[in-house]
Amino acid sequence: MTKLNSLKLFIMGLILIISNHAFSETVATTANDISFPAGLKNWRVIGTSYRKDNNTQRVILGNSIAIKAARSGQIKPWPQGTILAKLVWKNSQHPQWDDAIVPGEFVHSEIMIKDAKKFASTKGWGFARWLGKKQQAYGETASFAEECLSCHTRAKSTNYVFTIPATIP
Amino acid sequence: MTKLNSLKLFIMGLILIISNHAFSETVATTANDISFPAGLKNWRVIGTSYRKDNNTQRVILGNSIAIKAARSGQIKPWPQGTILAKLVWKNSQHPQWDDAIVPGEFVHSEIMIKDAKKFASTKGWGFARWLGKKQQAYGETASFAEECLSCHTRAKSTNYVFTIPATIP
Repeated sequence: MTKLNSLKLFIMGLILIISNHAFSETVATTANDISFPAGLKNWRVIGTSYRKDNNTQRVILGNSIAIKAARSGQIKPWPQGTILAKLVWKNSQHPQWDDAIVPGEFVHSEIMIKDAKKFASTKGWGFARWLGKKQQAYGETASFAEECLSCHTRAKSTNYVFTIPATIP
Repeated sequence: MTKLNSLKLFIMGLILIISNHAFSETVATTANDISFPAGLKNWRVIGTSYRKDNNTQRVILGNSIAIKAARSGQIKPWPQGTILAKLVWKNSQHPQWDDAIVPGEFVHSEIMIKDAKKFASTKGWGFARWLGKKQQAYGETASFAEECLSCHTRAKSTNYVFTIPATIP
């Protein structure tokens, strides 16, 4: 490893430590006490997906713990402190390329936080969602997370996470 | 702006300056003299898309110049020094969710570099592609970029770039 790469890694570590402890002051905390991570849109990519049933596409990002786990294959289970985030858009046809389907209207941000103690009642995962461009907290009471888990139970074999990290050379 | 945010911005600036001047020592340079940017997979996200004609999906990332331009709407034209990157995968059905289409086999990385002088013959953009997990440089002679431009001419109204930055709150 070159000196330049060592310096880069050190600085990245520094910024990611700082990022992990910062939460947005403007987006409301959810009913199950999850705050919107500041700087989420600057996180690194884990994968993408699109859904035919609700006509959306998304990018999946991760905090530093999630990225380290995803890129080293240590995700069964995902480690304590993992935050996985999805940015979701409605599908829209590209104006110059009929067969290219691109992000249209922003639908919501979603995160899953791994905290085995705090979220023991939902398999160690805290679920949160913020709707639309205004990022309004979803769920009137903390029990909304049961709704999330009811689908995610289908992904029990991958620690309740649907996302399988994409191959990135 | 809090002191924490100022510190974060300073550090991000530092790392992005360093990243912009580092190129991979292991991935071959293309015939039109474009080197693979080291740390590309750590860049921030601009958008996603999928294509029905060739059954692929992708994430679009950008270097610091591209991200600044995308997030401030200063992209007509994209500024000198912009690098836009695509990571492309074959579509694959999610094993636990039939209607979710996720990244399968890695197809290629692609970049577009804005350098009005160096790439004057291809509308100010340098095009490059590296194939598969081995990231083999695409194109035997520099003229391969004409092939890229022949499609991108369709996006002349958006400075030859198909990607329209996605809305990210």
